[in-house]
Amino acid sequence: MKQALHLHPDRLFPSDADTRAVARRLHAEIRALPIISPHGHTDPSWFAADTPFANPAELLITPDHYVFRMLFSQGVPMEDLGVPRADGGPVETDPRAIWRRFAERYDLFHGTPSRIWHDWVYAEAFGIDVRLSAETADHYYDVIDAALKTEAFRPRALFERHNIEVLTTTESPIDALEHHQAIRASGWKGRVLTAYRPDPVLDPDYEGFHANLAVLAEQTGRDTLTWAGYLDAHRDRRAFFASMGATSTDHGHPTAFTADLSRADAETLFARVSKGPVSAADAELFRGQMLTEMAAMSVDDGLVMQLHPGSFRNHNAAVFRQFGRDKGADIPTRTDYVQALKPLLDRFGSEPRLSLIVFTLDETTYSRELAPLAGHYPALKLGPSWWFHDSPEGMRRFREQVTETAGFRNTVGFNDDTRAFMSIPARHDVARRMDCGFLAKLVVEHRLEEDEAHDLARALTYDLVKAAYKL
Amino acid sequence: MKQALHLHPDRLFPSDADTRAVARRLHAEIRALPIISPHGHTDPSWFAADTPFANPAELLITPDHYVFRMLFSQGVPMEDLGVPRADGGPVETDPRAIWRRFAERYDLFHGTPSRIWHDWVYAEAFGIDVRLSAETADHYYDVIDAALKTEAFRPRALFERHNIEVLTTTESPIDALEHHQAIRASGWKGRVLTAYRPDPVLDPDYEGFHANLAVLAEQTGRDTLTWAGYLDAHRDRRAFFASMGATSTDHGHPTAFTADLSRADAETLFARVSKGPVSAADAELFRGQMLTEMAAMSVDDGLVMQLHPGSFRNHNAAVFRQFGRDKGADIPTRTDYVQALKPLLDRFGSEPRLSLIVFTLDETTYSRELAPLAGHYPALKLGPSWWFHDSPEGMRRFREQVTETAGFRNTVGFNDDTRAFMSIPARHDVARRMDCGFLAKLVVEHRLEEDEAHDLARALTYDLVKAAYKL
Amino acid sequence: MKQALHLHPDRLFPSDADTRAVARRLHAEIRALPIISPHGHTDPSWFAADTPFANPAELLITPDHYVFRMLFSQGVPMEDLGVPRADGGPVETDPRAIWRRFAERYDLFHGTPSRIWHDWVYAEAFGIDVRLSAETADHYYDVIDAALKTEAFRPRALFERHNIEVLTTTESPIDALEHHQAIRASGWKGRVLTAYRPDPVLDPDYEGFHANLAVLAEQTGRDTLTWAGYLDAHRDRRAFFASMGATSTDHGHPTAFTADLSRADAETLFARVSKGPVSAADAELFRGQMLTEMAAMSVDDGLVMQLHPGSFRNHNAAVFRQFGRDKGADIPTRTDYVQALKPLLDRFGSEPRLSLIVFTLDETTYSRELAPLAGHYPALKLGPSWWFHDSPEGMRRFREQVTETAGFRNTVGFNDDTRAFMSIPARHDVARRMDCGFLAKLVVEHRLEEDEAHDLARALTYDLVKAAYKL
Repeated sequence: MKQALHLHPDRLFPSDADTRAVARRLHAEIRALPIISPHGHTDPSWFAADTPFANPAELLITPDHYVFRMLFSQGVPMEDLGVPRADGGPVETDPRAIWRRFAERYDLFHGTPSRIWHDWVYAEAFGIDVRLSAETADHYYDVIDAALKTEAFRPRALFERHNIEVLTTTESPIDALEHHQAIRASGWKGRVLTAYRPDPVLDPDYEGFHANLAVLAEQTGRDTLTWAGYLDAHRDRRAFFASMGATSTDHGHPTAFTADLSRADAETLFARVSKGPVSAADAELFRGQMLTEMAAMSVDDGLVMQLHPGSFRNHNAAVFRQFGRDKGADIPTRTDYVQALKPLLDRFGSEPRLSLIVFTLDETTYSRELAPLAGHYPALKLGPSWWFHDSPEGMRRFREQVTETAGFRNTVGFNDDTRAFMSIPARHDVARRMDCGFLAKLVVEHRLEEDEAHDLARALTYDLVKAAYKL
Repeated sequence: MKQALHLHPDRLFPSDADTRAVARRLHAEIRALPIISPHGHTDPSWFAADTPFANPAELLITPDHYVFRMLFSQGVPMEDLGVPRADGGPVETDPRAIWRRFAERYDLFHGTPSRIWHDWVYAEAFGIDVRLSAETADHYYDVIDAALKTEAFRPRALFERHNIEVLTTTESPIDALEHHQAIRASGWKGRVLTAYRPDPVLDPDYEGFHANLAVLAEQTGRDTLTWAGYLDAHRDRRAFFASMGATSTDHGHPTAFTADLSRADAETLFARVSKGPVSAADAELFRGQMLTEMAAMSVDDGLVMQLHPGSFRNHNAAVFRQFGRDKGADIPTRTDYVQALKPLLDRFGSEPRLSLIVFTLDETTYSRELAPLAGHYPALKLGPSWWFHDSPEGMRRFREQVTETAGFRNTVGFNDDTRAFMSIPARHDVARRMDCGFLAKLVVEHRLEEDEAHDLARALTYDLVKAAYKL
Repeated sequence: MKQALHLHPDRLFPSDADTRAVARRLHAEIRALPIISPHGHTDPSWFAADTPFANPAELLITPDHYVFRMLFSQGVPMEDLGVPRADGGPVETDPRAIWRRFAERYDLFHGTPSRIWHDWVYAEAFGIDVRLSAETADHYYDVIDAALKTEAFRPRALFERHNIEVLTTTESPIDALEHHQAIRASGWKGRVLTAYRPDPVLDPDYEGFHANLAVLAEQTGRDTLTWAGYLDAHRDRRAFFASMGATSTDHGHPTAFTADLSRADAETLFARVSKGPVSAADAELFRGQMLTEMAAMSVDDGLVMQLHPGSFRNHNAAVFRQFGRDKGADIPTRTDYVQALKPLLDRFGSEPRLSLIVFTLDETTYSRELAPLAGHYPALKLGPSWWFHDSPEGMRRFREQVTETAGFRNTVGFNDDTRAFMSIPARHDVARRMDCGFLAKLVVEHRLEEDEAHDLARALTYDLVKAAYKL
């Protein structure tokens, strides 16, 4: 039986009638604000070439690790979803077959944000009015596939239609930023920026770290096997990224550990690290030292610093071997910030020129560590609920556990942080609704006046993010 | 003043009128489903002998550590509750005196699940309509005691009356399963199964571990002082348990640590462990290795594996000395799963023949570790909120923190895990109501359609548990 | 534009109409109960001298680290708020200028408890009916300043007007308690007690520890460089504090670690510690041993023991250097209780003469560690949500996560723990409302009867705190 698909105008608002009424009023004022997407992992080549997305599977399944991790957990092999094998072995190549496998198990996503995002895309972007199921899989495929062949669904058109004011991607220092150059050269007005993500030349455990150092040397003409040359190479590339519009850096460390070694000790450490093989202790110490070095450079060049720690990458050894990174097998770990950030904060915590935005996958740190730190240190701000916690309940916990100690203005609005382009407006829709619901609750419990809530709804949606990311 | 006792038909449902209406509709469809109790610690001799319960204290207080831990915390000596002393010294033997002590302090249980369970039993099973208090203690005692002397309150009759479709107890490998044999031989149709709990012959820290190995050798004819013989003895006993209807094993380790040693290293380790005394490090390593060995056997024989880690057993040294184990002095500890389970998951995480159901007493792991792991690994499923968290708020936190990342179908329905027989229907009643309330909230916030919620209510109550436990 | 300031009679109650109605009824019965403030850091000299507060800044900003930490986090230098520098260097001395800086950034406090407390003070104590802002800053200053010059706003008058039945301050063992002596001598009936906070002579890391030992020797005539003399000196001072009305001790350790060394080992440890410098390991071991010694003394002299662990004091090195302690730079850390308290609990956990009230800044311990411990050990009780968690959401989490396992009667009512005198009635107002809201939710979900909720509302507000603190 086909069931109707309908996005209810009150979705995600609290059910209590008074609270819902306030949430509606708040939302009405901010729902049409442009999208600021200051951090994510979309592919700049989409906007450079403006090539149509090939098919529904490539648009909605292949780039979405939320989707294939859930299907995999319930016994669907990665190969059947067309995820490329590292050895180039055979995987499903028929996008319609991939789509059907997803459609017939769509009930696995009940209660998850993926379902909310996907339904938004189906209803709002593609105008579909029946629910996704085995029965409607082909209908969906045909509708989406046909749409993708039209001008209106090319990447730039979607960017404009979704009212995106600015979108930031993330690139390695050794990326030539050719796609960003092409976007600029094209005369298209869409504002797509890059962010400086130095892990490939900063994390000794990154695949190809030593080879990447060599590339970096070539690019910059610096001797990246000396400490001074290596730091200068970073300065050069940061300046280049900034010249291409970057306003931020991003750091994906396994922990939030920072160090502040003497120049001599740092030099000695780098001498070991740059030669490799690198011990686990040296790798961690070097990452920690480099966070402090990056902060020092940010004080100079003004790039906003983002720290995304606490993911145990590639936890499933077999999946990593067979399919590589970013395959839904990254698992959060317990993460300390209080001890870990102290060396960096002792040096730069009160520095007005530094803005360090910290994220967490360990929600226990919201009220215990991050809100108290952000509610004290001028240099520190809190990023929104991240990754597994980019969800209605995750957002609610973030606001409930952070606000009382850090207030709203030590937070930075929403990040979608996505690889899935179509999920951007869907995710911002969720964030706006959840923020309005949270503010509405404060209003009806007389903890906030409604006029204040209106100001805050706008700040959380637009003003804070522009200010925090200098956009 | 005597107060009325009345189980409100809307109990435990959210108070918001719209949400409550949906919860009622969901609950109406599943309330009469049979009880599947796939994991617990009731005594199979009850059903083998079908002997009446001796008195109200023996039925409702002695087997319930939730009850005597709370009374003890407020100054009531264990002796006064008839808890037997290890040295055989004198304790209260008058069940009415025990009952009165409990009754006059019943207000200590306000706000606790014990109160909800007990009131259910009083009102629903015994038809009592006044609240328990010092004043009504004797009335209660008389009513319950009289009922227990009737046919309708013998164990098998209660089993049937409570619509229990299957009940699983937990036994040691060296248990002869004579009560289960007697149940089978009796011709009674009640389905009471056992589960394989190898701790007494697997955990070197278990009281009597070495003596138990000797018993195991005798039972199986295997040389349990060799690694090969020890593993074969497990295989034999697992096969025997399976022949008696067991579909699962259960593992109560202090941590979730697993290991995957080479055959030679495992052999050497076992040589040390089987001789004893065993160092703390060896004991932990051995437990960890044995979890992986048990997983390997589960791949072969199909027994579902349950892991219940993270309890600091017998925390109160004096109570342990005077009264022994399971006296309400077990305290949860911080528990890691991400590092701990990796050796086992690296070997069997994607193995479709393994089903590993993991529980936790550390709620911080729900959103950070367990939901991400279960939402990726095909072999992993999440057990329901456990022990101290088998409660309305505990269940709510479980669903709120797990569902968005793991969905519903990587969970396995409800476990009552009780030693207190009468609490079984009461606990399932709580779980069904809380699940309906949670689903209703998703419906009224337009995160789930009501027809989907109906399907899920049934799945959480019945279908998922039967599938997960192969019942 | 000036906005009205109005304390809504339903503030902080749940918005659901049925729940709110119950909350109102519960609150009506307890709102007028006297304030019992059994633990805090107000200055006894206020009540000894009864000198008027000098100005609005001194009353409401200078003693409130919640206020200046938030302003500092948003770039306001401590100097601009008149916080004295350690080097005596220049800071703002104009209270009106300080007040204006606060007023113009008052929106930073939206969503924080500080805002709720301050608004209570403005509306309820000073009768102000417009909201605080840059525009109304001078009006506020003038109104408050004028009031402070009247008899009605002198410390003793405020104490009486706020219906404070008893107020406990906290003093070092080497404090002569001259202000408390003066209060007694004055004939004023206000009950202001002290509590014994031995950190300055107990924690080897405390500034001036060794000098303090010398003062303690002088005061008591004991040889505080011998273990026996040191312990006797504590006994002497505890007896003196008790003679001045103290009923409790208070311990602010970095962790909850306890030890129970042999007499000989303790003596050897003290020999090292009393000489200094002290290693970090020795300092921690000594603090841990002293908690057990203090418990032993409490068994003898009946002083209730409070443990406030888990704050990383003075996290910002520069702020500590420039401004000293208690400047809003203390950050909570992960805190273990299960292992940490075991030595003390093994010795005194079942001791009916000991009452140990434990607090936490690590909310993850509520359901995992503290509620299970308090729901078992007779000597252990749980203090209310503390410091950063003394807030509406913090209180809600405390009750939700503690009650099901520990019940209500293993908790001890509310502590304001404040340095800011005017916040006392405001904080108690929040606690009473939040408790009534929590109880109301239990009532409308039929988990508690309304008559029981009335009894509990009174117990949480008044009875439990008087009993727990022996007041």
